[in-house]
Amino acid sequence: MSVIALYPGSFDPITNGHLDIVTRAAKLFDKVILGIYKKPDKRLLFTTEERVDLAKLACAGIPNVTVTEFGGLTVDFARKTGAKVVVRGLRKTADFEWELDMAMMNKYLAPDLELVCFMATLKYQFLSSSLLKEVANLGSNVDNLVPKAVADALKKKIIEGKL
Amino acid sequence: MSVIALYPGSFDPITNGHLDIVTRAAKLFDKVILGIYKKPDKRLLFTTEERVDLAKLACAGIPNVTVTEFGGLTVDFARKTGAKVVVRGLRKTADFEWELDMAMMNKYLAPDLELVCFMATLKYQFLSSSLLKEVANLGSNVDNLVPKAVADALKKKIIEGKL
Amino acid sequence: MSVIALYPGSFDPITNGHLDIVTRAAKLFDKVILGIYKKPDKRLLFTTEERVDLAKLACAGIPNVTVTEFGGLTVDFARKTGAKVVVRGLRKTADFEWELDMAMMNKYLAPDLELVCFMATLKYQFLSSSLLKEVANLGSNVDNLVPKAVADALKKKIIEGKL
Amino acid sequence: MSVIALYPGSFDPITNGHLDIVTRAAKLFDKVILGIYKKPDKRLLFTTEERVDLAKLACAGIPNVTVTEFGGLTVDFARKTGAKVVVRGLRKTADFEWELDMAMMNKYLAPDLELVCFMATLKYQFLSSSLLKEVANLGSNVDNLVPKAVADALKKKIIEGKL
Amino acid sequence: MSVIALYPGSFDPITNGHLDIVTRAAKLFDKVILGIYKKPDKRLLFTTEERVDLAKLACAGIPNVTVTEFGGLTVDFARKTGAKVVVRGLRKTADFEWELDMAMMNKYLAPDLELVCFMATLKYQFLSSSLLKEVANLGSNVDNLVPKAVADALKKKIIEGKL
Amino acid sequence: MSVIALYPGSFDPITNGHLDIVTRAAKLFDKVILGIYKKPDKRLLFTTEERVDLAKLACAGIPNVTVTEFGGLTVDFARKTGAKVVVRGLRKTADFEWELDMAMMNKYLAPDLELVCFMATLKYQFLSSSLLKEVANLGSNVDNLVPKAVADALKKKIIEGKL
Repeated sequence: MSVIALYPGSFDPITNGHLDIVTRAAKLFDKVILGIYKKPDKRLLFTTEERVDLAKLACAGIPNVTVTEFGGLTVDFARKTGAKVVVRGLRKTADFEWELDMAMMNKYLAPDLELVCFMATLKYQFLSSSLLKEVANLGSNVDNLVPKAVADALKKKIIEGKL
Repeated sequence: MSVIALYPGSFDPITNGHLDIVTRAAKLFDKVILGIYKKPDKRLLFTTEERVDLAKLACAGIPNVTVTEFGGLTVDFARKTGAKVVVRGLRKTADFEWELDMAMMNKYLAPDLELVCFMATLKYQFLSSSLLKEVANLGSNVDNLVPKAVADALKKKIIEGKL
Repeated sequence: MSVIALYPGSFDPITNGHLDIVTRAAKLFDKVILGIYKKPDKRLLFTTEERVDLAKLACAGIPNVTVTEFGGLTVDFARKTGAKVVVRGLRKTADFEWELDMAMMNKYLAPDLELVCFMATLKYQFLSSSLLKEVANLGSNVDNLVPKAVADALKKKIIEGKL
Repeated sequence: MSVIALYPGSFDPITNGHLDIVTRAAKLFDKVILGIYKKPDKRLLFTTEERVDLAKLACAGIPNVTVTEFGGLTVDFARKTGAKVVVRGLRKTADFEWELDMAMMNKYLAPDLELVCFMATLKYQFLSSSLLKEVANLGSNVDNLVPKAVADALKKKIIEGKL
Repeated sequence: MSVIALYPGSFDPITNGHLDIVTRAAKLFDKVILGIYKKPDKRLLFTTEERVDLAKLACAGIPNVTVTEFGGLTVDFARKTGAKVVVRGLRKTADFEWELDMAMMNKYLAPDLELVCFMATLKYQFLSSSLLKEVANLGSNVDNLVPKAVADALKKKIIEGKL
Repeated sequence: MSVIALYPGSFDPITNGHLDIVTRAAKLFDKVILGIYKKPDKRLLFTTEERVDLAKLACAGIPNVTVTEFGGLTVDFARKTGAKVVVRGLRKTADFEWELDMAMMNKYLAPDLELVCFMATLKYQFLSSSLLKEVANLGSNVDNLVPKAVADALKKKIIEGKL
């Protein structure tokens, strides 16, 4: 059996928590596509290009992971890439409920596409991209929470006054 | 990549909800072992042998699923069978929290064993083995909620006054 | 429009929280049947007869409420009495999830039977029959939490060593 | 007993989930007022007039439902229209908590106004106006999730680049 | 043992619910610092200066409470002031999960800083600054929900068209 | 200010998670009483005496902690010992809701007694006495989850066939 998995998200920016999920998914599925939403959301800190570059650097060591941006519906992108399953990380109850809604909507839109959830690792339970950006902006050292390149990119954004 | 998945539970008895999860898991993993806890819990309605037989009948049409009983820790059974991942179905928030605890405990006991969760299909969101037994005992028709053999077995238990 | 509502439960014993719900339901529906599960559950403190008597005393002042015991499925009893709607009180998230499961199961069993939920009044948010019995047994005064007759009945059970 | 119920909301736009709730409420109460918040929220897609028109079309077949816009406090509007009860649909835990807060606040503001909740039907559990707009905008067919006129109105908004 | 506690928040504006928490904290800890986030969030109604003034008026009667604004990380401000513990009020599940995330992040940033949570008093369970502002703006009397000076300040903002 | 805190529970047996909470509480309050419920619950594994002994051994290194058994209401025991605050550890949402109920009931029974909650440390989020006993009984090594004496006591119970 050869299964392609899609791990979609904003990844603004990719954290060690995301990296943990994609690493674990890559042990179960033949190929994992880390798909980055292309939408020009004004609330995002990094451009699509920056988010793709940071994710590519972070995933460089995992041979069966590819990073790519996409627009439109997740289920349409899954169909186009041949992905049979969507992968999500769950951190807590609130996540779960939103995921459940999305899973049901996706099931309505694409009955054959499967969704599986990975529980976040204990040490990353508290780690979200938004909380990360908040504490980084307030002066916190986040070196153990993100890949080196992301820490540097965050520092640059802060110096530029963009965070 | 060849991945064996373990789907553990009491299956007292197996429902269409369980069958839905195992069918979906069998599309993603090369082999799925439906593992039935052997413990002689007095609160169980069916014996281990009965639970195994009903599950085998229900899964007969899925070639890469095998049904087997087991004792001891789930993580030990996974190791023994070569399962790289444990599969669970999630129905709602309460399930999720208990699963999260078990996932963390299993991670502590066996760091290499992965756990993935499947969201219950919309039409089985409300279906648990305990609720099923409760309404069956009160006289409800449950033919659309369980495989035919399970419906028959439930009727027999009710006639025998065991439910 | 003439609507009969069914408010089912164990009522072991009826509390001021239950009384609050039934009083409010009686203002919206033409007739409210407070239905008491007849099942001889060993974990219950009061007999079916005692639970019916205490509920009748508590509801004596509300003309359009009747108290009655019942066995079998709630949906079957609703059908027999002509009830078009089942009434439940919600105290918190955990209640809600169980109610959601029951609502879905009942919808499967009796598509025409409606369920509406009343939010528990602020001052009774914490009040459940089980917590009530626990603190009464440990010596707490519960006079403001239950009708007078229930407080007396609880004291009698404690003296008899049955709680 | 003659009871008027108020079902307030943004209805931006009305979905089959809302329609399901109002249809069920109309079977229990003599008159149901679907009340649409008038506030000019910039995050809304449809104008108040459009939201009222779409809701009127959707509810045309239910004789005891009227659609109207309103400003100010829900409890004040209820008082003015003689509504004795507010109706809400519950989809999941998160909804429930917010409803609980609003119910308590309303109870503080208008002790005599009742609130009852209807559980969302299984097939509409995942359906919210915001999720609907998101997937419609990304190109999804939503014909089975909203009335025909709403599907058309959404397509028009997308063509106009307003969604 | 002499313990300084920090109670951080936006306090936009301070409510009777906040005042209840700070009063209770002041009975357990030698000194309580009510710390007001300085960030110029456009979504805030009151300026930092106004929020500090209203909180000072509200806390004037509690001798061991001081009110002060702060910028930067909460953990850094705690360190600077010698606070050994951060105090938070919990209203419901959703609060709890966010607090858990923050607690874990703070533990990562400052392992020695403790966090304790106080459950909101029953009568303030539903009271948040945002719900308060919403109902005040719609014309509701909020005199029993906030200190006198805050009620006056809210009325002034409404007259000025700023709410 | 001199504050006595009460940390009540079954402690069947005490775990590293409990020990973590009591250690942290002892840094904030002058004296912490670890109070062990005396009730002869048949579902408990250890006798009251054993539970007290294991807790005493575990807390031996914390000078301002005393261990004692108690019967009756927690609020009565708090009053008798002069405790001004009850301490609880929170692990997750489900805990929180039960604690909220108990907190409200205790507030009704003893308005002056305060309750504060400590969030469980990340690495003990999953650790409950019941899950501990379950995995220990199934053959798991639990040496890093409990004090040495408790691990030994659990092994003895297993050998005696009592778990």
